[in-house]
Amino acid sequence: MTIHILTVLPELLQSPLSHSIMKRAQDKGLLTVYVHPLRKWAVNEYGQVDDYQYGGGAGMVMMPEPLANAIEELSKDKPFDEIIFLTPDGETLNQKIANNLSLKENLLLICGHYKGIDQRIREKYVTKEISIGDYVLSGGELAAAVLVDAVGRLIPGVLNNETSALTDSFQDNLLAPPVYTRPAEWRGLKVPDILLSGHTAKVEEWRYEQAVERTKQRRPDLLED
Amino acid sequence: MTIHILTVLPELLQSPLSHSIMKRAQDKGLLTVYVHPLRKWAVNEYGQVDDYQYGGGAGMVMMPEPLANAIEELSKDKPFDEIIFLTPDGETLNQKIANNLSLKENLLLICGHYKGIDQRIREKYVTKEISIGDYVLSGGELAAAVLVDAVGRLIPGVLNNETSALTDSFQDNLLAPPVYTRPAEWRGLKVPDILLSGHTAKVEEWRYEQAVERTKQRRPDLLED
Repeated sequence: MTIHILTVLPELLQSPLSHSIMKRAQDKGLLTVYVHPLRKWAVNEYGQVDDYQYGGGAGMVMMPEPLANAIEELSKDKPFDEIIFLTPDGETLNQKIANNLSLKENLLLICGHYKGIDQRIREKYVTKEISIGDYVLSGGELAAAVLVDAVGRLIPGVLNNETSALTDSFQDNLLAPPVYTRPAEWRGLKVPDILLSGHTAKVEEWRYEQAVERTKQRRPDLLED
Repeated sequence: MTIHILTVLPELLQSPLSHSIMKRAQDKGLLTVYVHPLRKWAVNEYGQVDDYQYGGGAGMVMMPEPLANAIEELSKDKPFDEIIFLTPDGETLNQKIANNLSLKENLLLICGHYKGIDQRIREKYVTKEISIGDYVLSGGELAAAVLVDAVGRLIPGVLNNETSALTDSFQDNLLAPPVYTRPAEWRGLKVPDILLSGHTAKVEEWRYEQAVERTKQRRPDLLED
């Protein structure tokens, strides 16, 4: 999979994309991420990519021309499966959307900054608008990093057994059960006996019950789907 | 505000915390973020902080002892207002939670990695469990970065007028209206006349209507609260 990211702050994305599982995915050749500085397509020598918003009010807006030129140049070699704008008013990201996107081959992510991007770009180019949650961030960069991580780790071959996604929260509409490691008794607090029993089938039954119980308590909405 | 972050991957957090509004907040002295490598509290000379999970199964679990020692040492000088564990089964972050957290003075964020942290740490120390959304990430680091950004920008004085949070999505249970900037006509696509009219009151009325309309179409659930 190839993911292109268009941003006014390419340097913000440097460390999240170069460590841990994102690094492994890229080292294995399963994921290639290109971060493009939008200023490369600026409208003048000052690197301008934003301007005041029509109608007045606080906050700059990213201009249509640099975004359009960037999108068109980046689309030339290979068209994008999806052109995604990260925005708080987009569709809320969930594991199902991440699963679907992990099957795509070529994605473009557009990071908004300041007050947002000119509406005409959203209407003309963007095929999908995604929000990572009901809160506002300084820009779309962290949202893009979250999306790349959530999607990238689902590409077949990226995770090994040690980090298997099959038992993660949300994959089966259940939250994950509690986990414990050594020591079995720590500062007077004990690991549940069942986990020390060696009865694999009973352990799995306990884990399922715990997952259902935790989901009922914390996220009953997941059970209604 | 002071935010301490406890992580096995401190280097992943470097670039998100050192740019844009997070940098400004720290330069202004309004926010101090400390990133602590959990390995400083490892149980042996090999830097071990995780171990196999009881009951078997894929994925390592972060051990209780290093986390407990880290939390206790970091709490010594000044107790934390909240000790927050970032986890997909936590309470889902929203703008209201971000607003509330922005009033705190001293927070500790614990980033899980691998399969999670030993349940006993969650029961003994953690005061709040937060999820940034219904999807799974490689670790809690990006979730911590998102939380620091969402909360940090709400600290009074961090944002100036240009980036005012008052008209952002979610602050009033409405999505933001569309925004436009120059040129007024771009590749045949025009900015709505009302925004060029100079009638401030009418512009505000239009924006409110657009915000309500967009919220009705995309997120009717927000209007029910």
